[in-house]
Amino acid sequence: MAHVIDIDDPADPRLDDFRDLNSSDRRPDLPDGKGLVIAEGVLVVQRMLTSRFSAFALLGVDRRLAELEEDLDGVDVPFYRASAELMAEVVGFHLNRGVLAAAHRPATLSVDEVLDGARTVAVLEGVNDHENLGSMFRNAAGLGVDGVLFGKGTADPLYRRSVRVSMGHVLRVPFAHVPRWPYDLEHFRDKGFQLISLTPDPGAITLADAMTGEKVALLLGAEGPGLTEHAMRATDVRARIPMAPGTDSLNVATAAAMAFYERVRTGR
Amino acid sequence: MAHVIDIDDPADPRLDDFRDLNSSDRRPDLPDGKGLVIAEGVLVVQRMLTSRFSAFALLGVDRRLAELEEDLDGVDVPFYRASAELMAEVVGFHLNRGVLAAAHRPATLSVDEVLDGARTVAVLEGVNDHENLGSMFRNAAGLGVDGVLFGKGTADPLYRRSVRVSMGHVLRVPFAHVPRWPYDLEHFRDKGFQLISLTPDPGAITLADAMTGEKVALLLGAEGPGLTEHAMRATDVRARIPMAPGTDSLNVATAAAMAFYERVRTGR
Repeated sequence: MAHVIDIDDPADPRLDDFRDLNSSDRRPDLPDGKGLVIAEGVLVVQRMLTSRFSAFALLGVDRRLAELEEDLDGVDVPFYRASAELMAEVVGFHLNRGVLAAAHRPATLSVDEVLDGARTVAVLEGVNDHENLGSMFRNAAGLGVDGVLFGKGTADPLYRRSVRVSMGHVLRVPFAHVPRWPYDLEHFRDKGFQLISLTPDPGAITLADAMTGEKVALLLGAEGPGLTEHAMRATDVRARIPMAPGTDSLNVATAAAMAFYERVRTGR
Repeated sequence: MAHVIDIDDPADPRLDDFRDLNSSDRRPDLPDGKGLVIAEGVLVVQRMLTSRFSAFALLGVDRRLAELEEDLDGVDVPFYRASAELMAEVVGFHLNRGVLAAAHRPATLSVDEVLDGARTVAVLEGVNDHENLGSMFRNAAGLGVDGVLFGKGTADPLYRRSVRVSMGHVLRVPFAHVPRWPYDLEHFRDKGFQLISLTPDPGAITLADAMTGEKVALLLGAEGPGLTEHAMRATDVRARIPMAPGTDSLNVATAAAMAFYERVRTGR
């Protein structure tokens, strides 16, 4: 069991890693700052506790401590127990999920560590919206995608908002950064992956026709600019989701979900 | 061309319909209040101007007026031209999209007006999240869904946030409320629609196997509770999206997008 420590002073320095979570320069979850990873709410905290991210401290109300009792069995970390009011004062806003866990960033994974054993991976370029990243990880987990690779210009998936929107799945779906973008995509091909670019281009073939590989890497760009030509040239095929005329491109996490769905639909 | 009226007093009563857009009790876009529909940004304003929602006034900065010049050709409404600072003071927050249009709610459509001529419709029960509603309309438009029907417990799709997240498509995709829920679903069947409930139940058949009708009505419930048993019993078949074990249900707008995708994939 975590050791429970009651806190009644909001200035208690032991809570510093949970302080000012909304303040963009002081908050602890920025990669250039302390680089902490913050999990919010019982479900996401549970996911953190069974992930490669080791929580080193928790802060929560008594009710959440009770809900997490089994999960915290054998976990040797402090649980700072406080009132909801004190938590709000420390965190900087009212936190209706009632519990937080903080973890340090573990060692990053290599591309091979993500690709080995994988059958479907998503590869992102320029996706710099934390909410979209979170949704993407949630959809990846839900539809059995094995890993996510980051090309150029993607935002930090361990930002608090991404963790929350992903419902903790960014802590579980393995991800890695592709060092030389897009040249290293050649390495994916060597490993047997079919490389598919997703594009709104009406001249591209449909996703269902394009996706023929036993192992598939799906490239997705940001909403608006999409993938760079440079990245698309490094892939085997360009595929589109059939869209109604006169509409905009889909949200990138939604487009990804459809590609992931196409993959599970065909039983791969 | 809209007639341009320069405004330099933030208290000008002609701007009252744009006042305090974020204030929950005073804002003008509540159905129980003035019931106005507010479009934000050039793209959404353009969509409003070509929709059944007649804008009666616009408020914006000079640059946005210039961008909307062609769209406002022949439109006989005032364009209140103001500085970004004055707009922020009136609206209650900084509005980086720089232009707003206000419309009255038009007469509601009947279920038959939405169903006639439609081949694919979404039917929602208990979907009370404005952002999810907006995303759903955006995905519906993108994937050629002909209309949206509301059963019990759905939120107002004309709320400002829904309009914005939908990128204006809630102004274009027709929608109606189903009066007697779920009994009136029988009427959908009379009109030749196959009624499909979307459920995470692993015992259900897959979406791809279920969707056999020439005309399809897809029922979706809120994330978490899902559809009521009552509603599902009124449908022809229960279908699931194949999910990875141990994950949560998908976001409702994402699940809808996959069902819409399945429909376009099969060319229906």
